[in-house]
Amino acid sequence: MQDNNKNEILITDEDALKYEAAMRYMLAKLDLINTGLSDELGRKAASNISGRVKSIESIKNKLRRKNRKITGKNVHDVIKDIAGVRAVCFFVDDLYKFHEQLTYHSDITILKVKDYIKKPKKSGYRSLHLICRLDMPFAGQMLHTTVEIQLRTNAMDYWAELDNQLRYKKENESSTQIGKKLKSYADEISSIDKKMMKLRNRISQL
Amino acid sequence: MQDNNKNEILITDEDALKYEAAMRYMLAKLDLINTGLSDELGRKAASNISGRVKSIESIKNKLRRKNRKITGKNVHDVIKDIAGVRAVCFFVDDLYKFHEQLTYHSDITILKVKDYIKKPKKSGYRSLHLICRLDMPFAGQMLHTTVEIQLRTNAMDYWAELDNQLRYKKENESSTQIGKKLKSYADEISSIDKKMMKLRNRISQL
Amino acid sequence: MQDNNKNEILITDEDALKYEAAMRYMLAKLDLINTGLSDELGRKAASNISGRVKSIESIKNKLRRKNRKITGKNVHDVIKDIAGVRAVCFFVDDLYKFHEQLTYHSDITILKVKDYIKKPKKSGYRSLHLICRLDMPFAGQMLHTTVEIQLRTNAMDYWAELDNQLRYKKENESSTQIGKKLKSYADEISSIDKKMMKLRNRISQL
Amino acid sequence: MQDNNKNEILITDEDALKYEAAMRYMLAKLDLINTGLSDELGRKAASNISGRVKSIESIKNKLRRKNRKITGKNVHDVIKDIAGVRAVCFFVDDLYKFHEQLTYHSDITILKVKDYIKKPKKSGYRSLHLICRLDMPFAGQMLHTTVEIQLRTNAMDYWAELDNQLRYKKENESSTQIGKKLKSYADEISSIDKKMMKLRNRISQL
Repeated sequence: MQDNNKNEILITDEDALKYEAAMRYMLAKLDLINTGLSDELGRKAASNISGRVKSIESIKNKLRRKNRKITGKNVHDVIKDIAGVRAVCFFVDDLYKFHEQLTYHSDITILKVKDYIKKPKKSGYRSLHLICRLDMPFAGQMLHTTVEIQLRTNAMDYWAELDNQLRYKKENESSTQIGKKLKSYADEISSIDKKMMKLRNRISQL
Repeated sequence: MQDNNKNEILITDEDALKYEAAMRYMLAKLDLINTGLSDELGRKAASNISGRVKSIESIKNKLRRKNRKITGKNVHDVIKDIAGVRAVCFFVDDLYKFHEQLTYHSDITILKVKDYIKKPKKSGYRSLHLICRLDMPFAGQMLHTTVEIQLRTNAMDYWAELDNQLRYKKENESSTQIGKKLKSYADEISSIDKKMMKLRNRISQL
Repeated sequence: MQDNNKNEILITDEDALKYEAAMRYMLAKLDLINTGLSDELGRKAASNISGRVKSIESIKNKLRRKNRKITGKNVHDVIKDIAGVRAVCFFVDDLYKFHEQLTYHSDITILKVKDYIKKPKKSGYRSLHLICRLDMPFAGQMLHTTVEIQLRTNAMDYWAELDNQLRYKKENESSTQIGKKLKSYADEISSIDKKMMKLRNRISQL
Repeated sequence: MQDNNKNEILITDEDALKYEAAMRYMLAKLDLINTGLSDELGRKAASNISGRVKSIESIKNKLRRKNRKITGKNVHDVIKDIAGVRAVCFFVDDLYKFHEQLTYHSDITILKVKDYIKKPKKSGYRSLHLICRLDMPFAGQMLHTTVEIQLRTNAMDYWAELDNQLRYKKENESSTQIGKKLKSYADEISSIDKKMMKLRNRISQL
């Protein structure tokens, strides 16, 4: 995994392995939290849990978007989501329950909370992002790895898929118009999320 | 797995194993179709693929709802979704693409198509259900197993989760009111699905 | 899950869920250890990692073999391997490396080490068994679950499979003879294990 | 994935995806066969099933060992194990049962059988290799992919691991001596395999 321009190795195979291991270990934690929460709530909390390690190509693109030089140092200092996991839940309040449960894991330190639900991005994007430090024993020493946890509802995930497709298209007048339309749908979807949660509360009181 | 009332074995361990094997094999087929479709479309087709074998308790409840006697014969004659798989896609048209791809598998015979998207259930429930026969070699002979395939969008899946919770509550006036509200949300969600698909088409033409 | 004789519930669904969750979480830890060790050794450490929750039938049989009453209390006091995981490694010394790595996990307490490699069972059975306490946050509280970890080589695993089949046959003269033969093969297999390890060391020094 | 010397793309991303899909689909077939055989035999047939797609580096090395030019054409014409799956069984006769079950799958054509059990390699290597053609619907057309299936016992797998480590060491006098020793252990392991199978037959007749 090399930057062709500089022939500098941006991420060693060793590092890639560690990010992969951290991602898988964090997935096991999300799975544990989901089992516990689902047991407590009497219904499935997350509908889907997944993870990925960012490809070297995506890392470079992200550095470019941030106007940062593509160096190994910047990869580690700037990119906080090389290892990333995601839990997709049915209801908005479940996301905050996931967040709370994560704080009970003594080997996870939440470094930063980006609540794009309370303050959506300009595009309309909503999700709860947690930048965490995961401490784990690895090959005889303690390893500290940054992992991004994304928590979102099915509805937000659905919207984000379209937003993601739009992002990589050339910017022109129609893309601006589509962006506006997409933003208005984000608000519509969010209002459905709220109504569904209210209805769930009424059902559970039956 | 016995019916306590009659001490008749409704599903032998042998049968349960076969349904489990058929379910897993069908999951592999959905995975293959998803990989192919995603490659063709240049984006993820299904966001989630899952399967389950119906528990003996659910089977009995379904027979009761259908006013049928709880006998081993009825289990096999009446219950067509003992083995069930589900693909959840982002867009409505992808569901029909999944359906089409399934017809290319010579060991799958689609016995019945229940299109609850074109004709939603009274409750507002939408999904595309396919009752299939899967032919597979098993322990030296050819086995023919009925498997239900459910194809639905993220939005339909989200709605179905709430509907499912309502279903098991006692019927009374408030539950009827909630049911009406849920139905109107189903229409709202479906209209979002259509708008998102239209927007996706515009994005892909950029 | 009931004991038919007494109609006492031996393991609640809630307990079963917790044992299942602990087993899965421990699997993730073995996976992490394996990734780290393999990285350190420059070769795959474990060839296979697996887990299971003991069925209610096996639990009862084990209590019977131990001449203990089948009660819920005895299930929890006597049976220490309701949740069990196993790592199968290529070489004997890797088993002790796994053991060492487990001690670096602050949420695992090794309660008992049964080293059936240094002191094989009369049958010839060899493996390293660790009875552990796993502390994990679950549904808002700290859960302490006993998990048995079995560490063995491929060769020991292979032998154990046959031994397991013999165990459930009625005892008679031929079974005693077969038992003796099996024991002598256990020694033969163990001697191969030692020779292979020695050869591995010579290869790695090339 | 490029050959740096020639800047020719040896395997397109599209091809890599197809090999990956074929490998996963074949894994599902091995899983199905294993479930059926285990049911028939009343014991676990395979202890482990796994698969991999050969890395571009391994493909190039294999072409070099075979003294063939590193070209995209040669990759597809010469390398038959780009997609590879492996089932590791407890007993030698189970390997041939796996082979037989594969012939019942109408979408698998066994192109070549390399029986390194009846005729071990000079090194002592034993396994049953099947070069197969797998026909599968993919993205609307029928795809024909070559997949190698390796069938071996636990004991053979164990030996192969050491052999594999030796293979990548520089050839000198000690490596020749170690090779001879390894070969003699292969015979010893094979004799254990035979004795264990005989014992299994005696146990099953108890």
